Amino acid sequence: MNFSAIFIPELFGTMMLTLLGCGVVANVALPRTKGNGGGFLMVNFGWGLAVFAGVFVAISSGAHINPAVTIGLIANGAENFADGIPVNAANTLIYILAQLAGAFLGAVFCWLAYKTHFDADSDGPTKLGVFSTGPAMRSYGWNVVTEVIGTFVLVFVVISFGWAGENASTAAGQLGPLAVALLVVGIGASLGGPTGYAINPARDLGPRIAHALLPIKGKGGSDWSYAWVPVVGPIIGGVLGGLVAAAVFV
Amino acid sequence: MNFSAIFIPELFGTMMLTLLGCGVVANVALPRTKGNGGGFLMVNFGWGLAVFAGVFVAISSGAHINPAVTIGLIANGAENFADGIPVNAANTLIYILAQLAGAFLGAVFCWLAYKTHFDADSDGPTKLGVFSTGPAMRSYGWNVVTEVIGTFVLVFVVISFGWAGENASTAAGQLGPLAVALLVVGIGASLGGPTGYAINPARDLGPRIAHALLPIKGKGGSDWSYAWVPVVGPIIGGVLGGLVAAAVFV
Amino acid sequence: MNFSAIFIPELFGTMMLTLLGCGVVANVALPRTKGNGGGFLMVNFGWGLAVFAGVFVAISSGAHINPAVTIGLIANGAENFADGIPVNAANTLIYILAQLAGAFLGAVFCWLAYKTHFDADSDGPTKLGVFSTGPAMRSYGWNVVTEVIGTFVLVFVVISFGWAGENASTAAGQLGPLAVALLVVGIGASLGGPTGYAINPARDLGPRIAHALLPIKGKGGSDWSYAWVPVVGPIIGGVLGGLVAAAVFV
Amino acid sequence: MNFSAIFIPELFGTMMLTLLGCGVVANVALPRTKGNGGGFLMVNFGWGLAVFAGVFVAISSGAHINPAVTIGLIANGAENFADGIPVNAANTLIYILAQLAGAFLGAVFCWLAYKTHFDADSDGPTKLGVFSTGPAMRSYGWNVVTEVIGTFVLVFVVISFGWAGENASTAAGQLGPLAVALLVVGIGASLGGPTGYAINPARDLGPRIAHALLPIKGKGGSDWSYAWVPVVGPIIGGVLGGLVAAAVFV
Repeated sequence: MNFSAIFIPELFGTMMLTLLGCGVVANVALPRTKGNGGGFLMVNFGWGLAVFAGVFVAISSGAHINPAVTIGLIANGAENFADGIPVNAANTLIYILAQLAGAFLGAVFCWLAYKTHFDADSDGPTKLGVFSTGPAMRSYGWNVVTEVIGTFVLVFVVISFGWAGENASTAAGQLGPLAVALLVVGIGASLGGPTGYAINPARDLGPRIAHALLPIKGKGGSDWSYAWVPVVGPIIGGVLGGLVAAAVFV
Repeated sequence: MNFSAIFIPELFGTMMLTLLGCGVVANVALPRTKGNGGGFLMVNFGWGLAVFAGVFVAISSGAHINPAVTIGLIANGAENFADGIPVNAANTLIYILAQLAGAFLGAVFCWLAYKTHFDADSDGPTKLGVFSTGPAMRSYGWNVVTEVIGTFVLVFVVISFGWAGENASTAAGQLGPLAVALLVVGIGASLGGPTGYAINPARDLGPRIAHALLPIKGKGGSDWSYAWVPVVGPIIGGVLGGLVAAAVFV
Repeated sequence: MNFSAIFIPELFGTMMLTLLGCGVVANVALPRTKGNGGGFLMVNFGWGLAVFAGVFVAISSGAHINPAVTIGLIANGAENFADGIPVNAANTLIYILAQLAGAFLGAVFCWLAYKTHFDADSDGPTKLGVFSTGPAMRSYGWNVVTEVIGTFVLVFVVISFGWAGENASTAAGQLGPLAVALLVVGIGASLGGPTGYAINPARDLGPRIAHALLPIKGKGGSDWSYAWVPVVGPIIGGVLGGLVAAAVFV
Repeated sequence: MNFSAIFIPELFGTMMLTLLGCGVVANVALPRTKGNGGGFLMVNFGWGLAVFAGVFVAISSGAHINPAVTIGLIANGAENFADGIPVNAANTLIYILAQLAGAFLGAVFCWLAYKTHFDADSDGPTKLGVFSTGPAMRSYGWNVVTEVIGTFVLVFVVISFGWAGENASTAAGQLGPLAVALLVVGIGASLGGPTGYAINPARDLGPRIAHALLPIKGKGGSDWSYAWVPVVGPIIGGVLGGLVAAAVFV
């Protein structure tokens, strides 16, 4: 029963997220596409609207589509992940597994959609960049700091959306999925410069596993030495966001 | 009676769609326009807001303005195409004919709006690109795959909008035409790189017929060898989107 | 009484329109600004959000801020311009005078905001382009056609907003001023390439008068030979939009 | 009690504002970031969505996050700053102190998020530009004029939002924080060219103090000779906006 209430919507929602999110990077970065060189703002809108689609698809499970949100809600002291879905260890696990599986599948479909362009000539890091994030300047400690701050903003402000809807203003809650989408456009534009804003462990790890497994032409390595950063940073940021939100939005 | 309930709104809605949609490509691609070289994100917003205008104009017929949506709703098991318009073969035919005719007319008006720029010096493929989509890398099989995936996302997520509005949250359904517009901005940015995202048989075929018939200066061929791809791909994608949505949004 | 009900809101609304609208052109086109060379999409968003601000400010008078809308509503057969403001010749005149005066004032404040950049070295046509539209390729007949089509879309779709809100869907009317703003972003991106989309006689004529009167350094001529195009074209387009809307949205 | 009702939401809201707002400038201007050279429209969206996040977080205190808004509301004759928070000198002081402290903290976290890029090679003025505004062409008088006009638009139109929601249309007030965010995108695109649109004394002074205190590598001076302009200009503009709004929106 929780399979259909949690696993299915989170799977499809996170699949939409990485299909469209990885897709916009493919469009901007891979050779001979129509959007090649389209700029960072286009990437920001692509990922923001990927969230938009994913949140609508997963709305019945609370539309986490991100383990940092799931864990952040626990830290926030939530009793339910969504209407009728209590916070407990088993449900947490179902959320995270669904998110990872969905992120993996979305990346696979992105690869299929851009197959001819993956087969065209470009270097391995460019191809990996379609799937997973990497640092502009490698410095594990500071890269973690950037991911912590970005994910803190995501979880802290998303919780403020719900709180505003319930407590402060009837108008403030009407934007629903659009509010989350625009927030992610903003986080990307503002805090995406150093690490490419994973701000979501599943969004990074699922596609990285896909990159490792898929027979991508000339793909090079999957940069596993960096893979822990966009997992650990977002989890810390999500927990901090949930804790601070619990203190502020009372 | 179904003429006024279906044909007129779908005709005008799809006319707005291709007038504004083909228009933004003309602005970016034709010589000596004020928007020349405006970038792919501008094309994405132009098409997305073309959908926005078209959906408002056609709202009384359910605002399909796309045969892939009409057919996707049948696959989804819908009983009505819109309030008071039952799903049946005759109505389906009226929808699709109106969409084709509207898409044709919108392209004609786009040509008139950009007449001096069509008369200026540019090559045939650039002029055709204002009317219809073409592949960045020609590979019929993979081009179909890309159109299938893009249209799947369109139909699957559009059905989730309605479902979210009815079942999961009163707030989620408030965006109406804006939600569809933003989704199309996102699909364009993310999945438009390989084929220029027809994701709508009428949007591609109607303007292609206009291109073939209009006395466009130096127009070159209409690339009929590719014309089946943006018809077949979106139909397959729409059917799959409707079927999967029926299984997921229950 | 109609002075405060019509003149004041239309004056301030149209002043916001041209202050922000001319401002974005100044930012993109004048030398040494921070937004110099910002691109056509930035111009589109600037004008769209200028409409957004202007519509909110003028909401009590129905937020025409455009003689083509005022005249288009007459052609549409409207009984009232806004709640409590009947359609008649005297009110029509008050609307149009307020719009012209507001557009003039907005351009004056734009000049003040960008004073140091107007004083910097650039050619006369660039400076005129901040105030008024001009054709990318001068061809009076076709330039009129482009303005007719653009304004037709504006008035036709704006009327569909109101109709959708009243007749087809409670959700569709919730966007209010945002819907008009986004429509203008779209018309600009899609149909602004040949003439710079005046689609509003006051928006073009008011600032052109300001250009002629203000002591702008090195300003050159005000191109009065073209000035009739962005007046006549939008009026024809507005009338056609109102008439066709009356036939379609019944 | 007013500490938690005013200080905490204003502190966190203004912190979100400058964290995300300064962040987008860092992304566009600092070397080796992923968004380097992303363009002025990206800066406009970054700051607009920074306002979006900040307004949600501070919604219970009326979401001023800007002393020019606080002072503008006094000039407007408001009786309350927000539900249950009367206008008086003590509360005014709490608002402004919280805004300054929050703006300072947001800039500190921005510096941490971009630490490796601040350590990379770039000149002092570029680094200062992440924190505070500076004129494109230095001319204190005209720079003040630009800031006055920009802040007038901000306060005047924000007050029209509330007035529209209460008086003219039920639909017009539904956008809430999104309306303010889009207005700031528009003001930035349209009036940001000469001075970089502080339009908020706290947004400029708080980060400037952070710049002066933080051990930023190779930071150069904090340009205190200009620091009064983005304080005085916005205060004058806010007062004028509040006064004119009181006369117009009656």
